[in-house]
Amino acid sequence: MTDLLQSALQPRSVAIIGASDNIHKIGGRPIDYMRRFGYQGSIYPINPSKSSIQGLPCYAGLRDLPEVPELALIAVGADKAVDSVAACADLGVRSAVIIASGFGETGAAGKDMEAHMLQRAQRSGMRLFGPNTQGLANFGSGTIAGFSTMFTEVPPLDGPIGIISQSGGMSAMTYGLLRGQGLGVRHVHATGNEADVTVGEMALAVAHDPDIQLLLLYLENIANPDMLAQAAAYARARDLPIVAVKAGRTQDGQRAASSHTGSLANEDRTVDAFFRQHGIWRAQDPHEQVRAAGAYLKGWRPAGQRLVVISNSGASCVMGADTASDHQLPLAQLAPATQQALGDKLPGFATTDNPIDITAALLSNSGLFGDVLPAIAQDPSADLIFINIPVAGAGYNVAQFAKDTAAFERQTGKPVAVAAWQTNIAEVFKQHGVLTYANEQEAIGVLAQVAKHHQLLQQAAPARPAQAAQSPALLPPHSGPFLSEVQSLDLLAQHGIATVKTLLCTSASEVADAFAELGGQVVIKACSAAIPHKSEHGLVAVNVQDQAHAMALFEQFSAKMQAMGVQADGVIVAAKHKGQHEFMVGAKMDPVFGPVVVLGDGGKYVEALQDCAVLMPPFSVQEAQAALAQLHIAPLLGGVRGEPALDTNALCAIAEQVGALLIAANGRIASLDLNPVMVSANGAVVVDALVECAPGV
Amino acid sequence: MTDLLQSALQPRSVAIIGASDNIHKIGGRPIDYMRRFGYQGSIYPINPSKSSIQGLPCYAGLRDLPEVPELALIAVGADKAVDSVAACADLGVRSAVIIASGFGETGAAGKDMEAHMLQRAQRSGMRLFGPNTQGLANFGSGTIAGFSTMFTEVPPLDGPIGIISQSGGMSAMTYGLLRGQGLGVRHVHATGNEADVTVGEMALAVAHDPDIQLLLLYLENIANPDMLAQAAAYARARDLPIVAVKAGRTQDGQRAASSHTGSLANEDRTVDAFFRQHGIWRAQDPHEQVRAAGAYLKGWRPAGQRLVVISNSGASCVMGADTASDHQLPLAQLAPATQQALGDKLPGFATTDNPIDITAALLSNSGLFGDVLPAIAQDPSADLIFINIPVAGAGYNVAQFAKDTAAFERQTGKPVAVAAWQTNIAEVFKQHGVLTYANEQEAIGVLAQVAKHHQLLQQAAPARPAQAAQSPALLPPHSGPFLSEVQSLDLLAQHGIATVKTLLCTSASEVADAFAELGGQVVIKACSAAIPHKSEHGLVAVNVQDQAHAMALFEQFSAKMQAMGVQADGVIVAAKHKGQHEFMVGAKMDPVFGPVVVLGDGGKYVEALQDCAVLMPPFSVQEAQAALAQLHIAPLLGGVRGEPALDTNALCAIAEQVGALLIAANGRIASLDLNPVMVSANGAVVVDALVECAPGV
Repeated sequence: MTDLLQSALQPRSVAIIGASDNIHKIGGRPIDYMRRFGYQGSIYPINPSKSSIQGLPCYAGLRDLPEVPELALIAVGADKAVDSVAACADLGVRSAVIIASGFGETGAAGKDMEAHMLQRAQRSGMRLFGPNTQGLANFGSGTIAGFSTMFTEVPPLDGPIGIISQSGGMSAMTYGLLRGQGLGVRHVHATGNEADVTVGEMALAVAHDPDIQLLLLYLENIANPDMLAQAAAYARARDLPIVAVKAGRTQDGQRAASSHTGSLANEDRTVDAFFRQHGIWRAQDPHEQVRAAGAYLKGWRPAGQRLVVISNSGASCVMGADTASDHQLPLAQLAPATQQALGDKLPGFATTDNPIDITAALLSNSGLFGDVLPAIAQDPSADLIFINIPVAGAGYNVAQFAKDTAAFERQTGKPVAVAAWQTNIAEVFKQHGVLTYANEQEAIGVLAQVAKHHQLLQQAAPARPAQAAQSPALLPPHSGPFLSEVQSLDLLAQHGIATVKTLLCTSASEVADAFAELGGQVVIKACSAAIPHKSEHGLVAVNVQDQAHAMALFEQFSAKMQAMGVQADGVIVAAKHKGQHEFMVGAKMDPVFGPVVVLGDGGKYVEALQDCAVLMPPFSVQEAQAALAQLHIAPLLGGVRGEPALDTNALCAIAEQVGALLIAANGRIASLDLNPVMVSANGAVVVDALVECAPGV
Repeated sequence: MTDLLQSALQPRSVAIIGASDNIHKIGGRPIDYMRRFGYQGSIYPINPSKSSIQGLPCYAGLRDLPEVPELALIAVGADKAVDSVAACADLGVRSAVIIASGFGETGAAGKDMEAHMLQRAQRSGMRLFGPNTQGLANFGSGTIAGFSTMFTEVPPLDGPIGIISQSGGMSAMTYGLLRGQGLGVRHVHATGNEADVTVGEMALAVAHDPDIQLLLLYLENIANPDMLAQAAAYARARDLPIVAVKAGRTQDGQRAASSHTGSLANEDRTVDAFFRQHGIWRAQDPHEQVRAAGAYLKGWRPAGQRLVVISNSGASCVMGADTASDHQLPLAQLAPATQQALGDKLPGFATTDNPIDITAALLSNSGLFGDVLPAIAQDPSADLIFINIPVAGAGYNVAQFAKDTAAFERQTGKPVAVAAWQTNIAEVFKQHGVLTYANEQEAIGVLAQVAKHHQLLQQAAPARPAQAAQSPALLPPHSGPFLSEVQSLDLLAQHGIATVKTLLCTSASEVADAFAELGGQVVIKACSAAIPHKSEHGLVAVNVQDQAHAMALFEQFSAKMQAMGVQADGVIVAAKHKGQHEFMVGAKMDPVFGPVVVLGDGGKYVEALQDCAVLMPPFSVQEAQAALAQLHIAPLLGGVRGEPALDTNALCAIAEQVGALLIAANGRIASLDLNPVMVSANGAVVVDALVECAPGV
């Protein structure tokens, strides 16, 4: 499969259907580009009304070519494109790029046309790119099967970056931004409607190009997460970072995306969880994506995330510290020896603590950077270095600062970023190969990104468990979509999850016995798979302290269920379990991403407050702990007001087990809702649970 | 006072103490600057070892001058500066700028020296700027009593912007960034240690300059909020927007600020509340501050905050919608007539809904902007216009787009911002006077800022009530710092705040009567001003349902208080009040800002969860409502899961009354803590309260 894609990126021959002599037209530009950008294979213009195009022999039709082209670029309108695809498929063309719009993005009829075209291609094993795409460009091979005007605006330079985008506009903009930074770009591919080849499959192909050191993706919807996960796993194994933009982050954005591409919306927190699980860094937009590109190409391996801030302005030290906090980077606590060394070098009124304010003394002593940086180099707590130069110019020996900074970076391998808004100052640092940014938000943001992305990739991806063979015992018999509460709790207990002690009673006398067994305070609930939300029907009594009352409730609930005409399993008597805090653990099969676990604050306001984190199983207890630490209620976890710390390990273990259960169920469970899960200082217990089975199971 | 400051900004004569022939030295640069930048008054260099400096007659000392200079720029070291200040004061100099470092920022000895210098100046009515300052610069009068190298790096241009900064570095950087945008700047003043004149007083002075249309402030601490408030009120009255950076937003930043200036930290949420109350927009850093400058100078008065997004790229439409959500701008719902008009103009596959994707058809039809914008102009819901051009270049008639955009802006007065990262594209729009930004985050951020700042300034600032004459009846007698619970609740009740029904009992039989009066379920608490936190001592029983139990608790609590050796008022029997949600209302005297009110989620985790908003009284119920809407628990306010909406008006009225009470107390109340305030569908009732009196009251 990757071979096929690679052959589409460096084919021995390309036919252009709808070729034009006009190098500004869609059918003319790719020919011009390929000749200018060094394509070494055969170019076959096809146009029935011309004998030569741009100085090349032109052919009337596909069948007139001297050989079967490996790649066809179809640069004709939608209707003709369908016919061309058929002709290509018949001839044995291996890949075709369809530029035309007017397919799936326009509605049902267009979708049908697109599906039909795909079928036609698949019958002969031909792969399709697009339709509705700006096409492919590989500046390594000179294969430009696309028409972006940006390659004229900003001349190409082959380099270690690959761009793969569902949007042609964004692939062009990202290319332009990178080139504007002076970075070389090899791959610029737009996948358009993705009738066949997706960003994920393209990413896997490009990841096989050994020269590529950074992959940038732009997505508006993720239809095939497995392929993208496969690409991420391959890239991770060969140490190739992926930074992705997934637009449509918000409701308004998703609405706009659906009218742009007609695609279904992905739940955004699930997208975050998916990217995190696969070590893909999510950038907000292409600007943020491109901003960090230079830093990735440095190949830094930061040992930690502790930042050192150095400036010749006290105010910039203050704002550097603020910005470090914004990006959740701790300031490095410099060792006493470092501070001593700094004190020896800096004037008396400078700060030797971090942030290091070398003050305007820099104006009179140009060696200060060269003096200060070696002291920092020795300090084991200095993981990341940020230098802020808000004011310099005539009188400052900027070349010396830049030289000293570059030497420090070379010798220590520590990530360094400089903020210098004055372009003449920034230019000097750039000439010495030091990364510079317009301000501290950008510079520190980039340092935070590379450090945190590195950490994310260091975490071993938990192995996905082999999907369990369907165990007949897994799901008990059930008539509707839901298991009853007793069945739901039993299922959890069978999988090793602690549940509250619960007795199912089918008579008042059984209730009396259960009350006696469970002690002075119990919860009584109706039990029927047909009533998943019992409390809404007044079928829960939470604080029953009296045996006679318990028995009366049996009669009352039984009568009510009978009146509702539902099949009743009986009445549950459950031990009253008092934990310190109520949590919830949910899990569901996402239609795109599959098993997804939600972990958060529990109780009756779960839906309203949404204080929860999304995790993609399998995940480790540590990852669940990290997710808990981001919740609004996180400050309570360690114990406050004299309360002991909560046993979040037990809670996270339940979340992990629920994820494993959903995977093992192999599609037969649609969702699980454990709420509340009572967590105390020792342990976590599921008090109520509802399991929803997949339709037809 | 403002007259005095204005005379310091356009004095008839300036003496430079420590004048130098070298125009790169601190004592030489201001003379060079004043002569180059058009200062019309007399310049008197003072240096005992020279007879002329930079071609001007030089004087040995102040007393040798032909007249008393209005302003003295003291450009000598700290020790000599103290003497120079004394000499200036003796001679009747009206203002002095002290450049030297080595004063308050270095510690206690420096602080003493600074205070002594200030006293000396005040004795003769002379005003001080600095010490530790880069000085003052007024490009309107050419008075440059400062030495920033930035005026050489970026040539000045007089214009409608004033910069006032505690940091010289930030004043220079902000000046440079504005000039880099081509904007003119008149005032660039650094206040340094603010021994005397503060940013606030300087802002008031500069606000009196009728040519100034935008004031930019940089602060690391606010020591004198009243003066800043006065400046803000004056500016607001003359329609002059103020945008302030207050660095030290975070703990790390505050620590860095305190080692930079030795100043006390301001509580950051209180700073936010202060700025909001006074209509000052808070920017994160000088870059953000400068970014919006051009938009302020347009003088736009947006009717609302509904955004229209227009792009030639579908992906940019998606990201525009995402970014609008990031900035809490709703997308305008275009009227059917508008959509009809757009449909007539745009190709069939374009979107006529907002965001408006005019598609790459722009390449072949350059008139599309001119076609689309008039339709938007008619739509009453289109408050703000954002145009995103991620890809253009050869073949696009950018000049036409820019001309059409400028015409639209001129004709409608609606705010328009363009994102165009390609500098050649941006340049064309700029030439037509249209604001352009590198990306949608910046462009939409600026539109959001001007719209929301306009809205903030439209809200009538609530009149500060005249401080009440000290009413002898206000605070009951108390021995320690706290009032007892009964006294606290009584005080609130006297001020019209609803409190829970509470009976103070001094015998078991009174408890029995109280139990009978209040009904079947009561709360029993010990009452002693010496035990402000009763529950920590086990002196609260929340759920007493039995008269005998109530009487027993009286004996138990009384014995315990006796054992603790504290003065006991008795035991409280309170009606058990069940609201729908527990809130808290707190208030305290901030050492800098005075009365501050905190409103938020209540209960026992108040301190841990910090789900609260800070408001500066006096504020309106509407402002309190807006603050509530930002809380984590905001989704509960309207009623969820079948619950009715909470009576937040009653809650906000309590917060307003508590603020008024704290103001009226005129410093005698240190803090109030109302927690919980039980809020239901009808009303809000204070269930527990603790009033702390100011020391010595």
